[in-house]
Amino acid sequence: MGMIDVGKKRVTKRTAKAKAVVRTGKDIIRRIKENRIAKGDVLEHARISGIMAAKKTSDIIPLCHPLPLDHVEVSFEVFKDSVVVNTMVTARTRTGVEMEAMTAASCAALTIYDLCKMYGKGIEIKDVCLLYKSGGRTGVFKRKD
Amino acid sequence: MGMIDVGKKRVTKRTAKAKAVVRTGKDIIRRIKENRIAKGDVLEHARISGIMAAKKTSDIIPLCHPLPLDHVEVSFEVFKDSVVVNTMVTARTRTGVEMEAMTAASCAALTIYDLCKMYGKGIEIKDVCLLYKSGGRTGVFKRKD
Amino acid sequence: MGMIDVGKKRVTKRTAKAKAVVRTGKDIIRRIKENRIAKGDVLEHARISGIMAAKKTSDIIPLCHPLPLDHVEVSFEVFKDSVVVNTMVTARTRTGVEMEAMTAASCAALTIYDLCKMYGKGIEIKDVCLLYKSGGRTGVFKRKD
Amino acid sequence: MGMIDVGKKRVTKRTAKAKAVVRTGKDIIRRIKENRIAKGDVLEHARISGIMAAKKTSDIIPLCHPLPLDHVEVSFEVFKDSVVVNTMVTARTRTGVEMEAMTAASCAALTIYDLCKMYGKGIEIKDVCLLYKSGGRTGVFKRKD
Amino acid sequence: MGMIDVGKKRVTKRTAKAKAVVRTGKDIIRRIKENRIAKGDVLEHARISGIMAAKKTSDIIPLCHPLPLDHVEVSFEVFKDSVVVNTMVTARTRTGVEMEAMTAASCAALTIYDLCKMYGKGIEIKDVCLLYKSGGRTGVFKRKD
Amino acid sequence: MGMIDVGKKRVTKRTAKAKAVVRTGKDIIRRIKENRIAKGDVLEHARISGIMAAKKTSDIIPLCHPLPLDHVEVSFEVFKDSVVVNTMVTARTRTGVEMEAMTAASCAALTIYDLCKMYGKGIEIKDVCLLYKSGGRTGVFKRKD
Repeated sequence: MGMIDVGKKRVTKRTAKAKAVVRTGKDIIRRIKENRIAKGDVLEHARISGIMAAKKTSDIIPLCHPLPLDHVEVSFEVFKDSVVVNTMVTARTRTGVEMEAMTAASCAALTIYDLCKMYGKGIEIKDVCLLYKSGGRTGVFKRKD
Repeated sequence: MGMIDVGKKRVTKRTAKAKAVVRTGKDIIRRIKENRIAKGDVLEHARISGIMAAKKTSDIIPLCHPLPLDHVEVSFEVFKDSVVVNTMVTARTRTGVEMEAMTAASCAALTIYDLCKMYGKGIEIKDVCLLYKSGGRTGVFKRKD
Repeated sequence: MGMIDVGKKRVTKRTAKAKAVVRTGKDIIRRIKENRIAKGDVLEHARISGIMAAKKTSDIIPLCHPLPLDHVEVSFEVFKDSVVVNTMVTARTRTGVEMEAMTAASCAALTIYDLCKMYGKGIEIKDVCLLYKSGGRTGVFKRKD
Repeated sequence: MGMIDVGKKRVTKRTAKAKAVVRTGKDIIRRIKENRIAKGDVLEHARISGIMAAKKTSDIIPLCHPLPLDHVEVSFEVFKDSVVVNTMVTARTRTGVEMEAMTAASCAALTIYDLCKMYGKGIEIKDVCLLYKSGGRTGVFKRKD
Repeated sequence: MGMIDVGKKRVTKRTAKAKAVVRTGKDIIRRIKENRIAKGDVLEHARISGIMAAKKTSDIIPLCHPLPLDHVEVSFEVFKDSVVVNTMVTARTRTGVEMEAMTAASCAALTIYDLCKMYGKGIEIKDVCLLYKSGGRTGVFKRKD
Repeated sequence: MGMIDVGKKRVTKRTAKAKAVVRTGKDIIRRIKENRIAKGDVLEHARISGIMAAKKTSDIIPLCHPLPLDHVEVSFEVFKDSVVVNTMVTARTRTGVEMEAMTAASCAALTIYDLCKMYGKGIEIKDVCLLYKSGGRTGVFKRKD
């Protein structure tokens, strides 16, 4: 019970990818594209908050290990009525970095919500999920669509 | 651009409710109900991490104001193949507490994911959204189903 | 269950005092008095860490409310074989500041331990307790010796 | 003066165990056993806050090194009028993890205090101390009773 | 000694403005203007980190009070060989917000340094200073040039 | 764009030295020397806040990697009308520790400002800059005076 003891696991390269879908509606997407969100550049805020959230994962999720991350990447695809957040985290550690990728995606999505909510309270965060994971004993995981 | 200046807004009672749906599949729900998740009591971990995340909101979301919260509540409904996280936050402040309710719901959901992921990587967080909001100039918001 | 809803409580001046006793043994006390602790000025480190810990209380204790503190004071009495940490916290809030005073005392004591532990692993923290509390519905509390 | 330079120390497996005794009185123990503490499950809150505090140690104690911990364990013994918190921390690092074990024990004890204090302000935290330490140059330490 | 007790001060509107000058040299300024800094949009990163740092002030500066801020603004002037960071912070509090404005300016400047340092290690942060302060007993302060 | 991927860099010993100059004026220097600053021992507060800030660097600067630091040192030279803060940070990591040394210097300087500002608002932080860097692919950097 409690934290998993990772002391006997091997240090290997760990990669995890996650995504979050933010359904904003068409009007807000238009504003994002035309840079007409009063609080600032939505995707830049979301990227930075996602990267910072990845680094805070072990402070947010009770049983996560504090990990020296090698890399955190947060990118976006802007669709007609939604933004997809894509995250990738890598580290050379004794345990995986899924939670870091998931936390980065969730928090970037929350930041998009925060900057856009003055234009409509109906925004929803959909489908925060793990896309890919490699490294460690259990091998490669790839999400089926 | 940047933070909204809330200095001229009135201090009123603010309430916000949000939810997050975690689709785990039936096997994991059975384990949760029978208390057979090796890392610990899933809902208790999720509740505590949700409450703590609400208090960290202004540290996670770049443009959120630091707020003295009066109350944070995190509760759960366990369905056949999913857990619904419900949050409620109240404060007497110059700005609303939607982001606190949304952040609590998201982080409680991430904690459920973290405790259950060893039983299946296909868990997804669905429908993080605002259910209700009152207080402040814009009045009451109620999400339509 | 969860956080207490303090929304209906009145804002009053709240004061709390706590103490912690660190039993170090005579040799370490001599070193503290003669400023011969290699890592630095023990009491100054303890005071600062205690003040900073009081401000972090709601981040450390799951159900504590984030509070705008008016004042945190950390002082010391150095005895023959022990140091007594005394803390006082005040605020004008809807809930008391006992946990802030207790957390400040505990963390100041842990810092004394940390700076002195190279001179003996037998140091113990004794009697972390509330000495006094005023403000709020339940009135004045004074610990009996 | 200041932080110890651990750069020349060897990376070895480090273990530390600590305890804290919370004297609550018999009535509160009965409530804990019968799960009649209004704020929630006392030991579950204490366990989680202890684990999270271990991860925050270098943020609370000024001269502690930030360490990638392998494992944090917090368990309890419930006696007639007191709860004993037991912690164990392990890591593969250049410096020991005593402070992590001590901080986890102290903060778990503070959380027990916080959840129970509405039933009596006379609760005291007693005997926060190191029980065991291994790894590193100074070898094994075992506390004598 | 220690924190100032602000309990008897009146709650008034407090404003503080500060600046920091980052001397980067002409080449880096050209890159900033042409958006050719590999790590990302320099000023957007600096703005966000400055706003977030203002909110963290009481966690960074030992004797600063935790304050519910109304507004934090971070803006920039780009000159031939330097960037000037301008910050403004307001709050309705019992104590001033100078340190919040100064900390925001310093941390925004550090972020500019971090994003640009791969193009030259000679970057310097100059003249972090308070420009203006109002509210509270001591009245208005305006820095003379 | 975003964080640099340090996964392919080699783990080597990294050292960085930085400084910050705080121009306080002669009166404040006299007070510092005679220990007549009401809020407490200025240099001790500055040292501790600098060390703690170094450990928080990745939480303050958006694209900095969280690093297990081996050593942080903060020292001072007191001149006629200014204090010079000197910092040194070392670690065995895949990326350099310049930002840790710079952040420690900046935050120690801000703390000096905070403790002395009641004796004059004209204090300025000057010349926060990197003095030295070694380890890693780019070799040794030494600042020319």
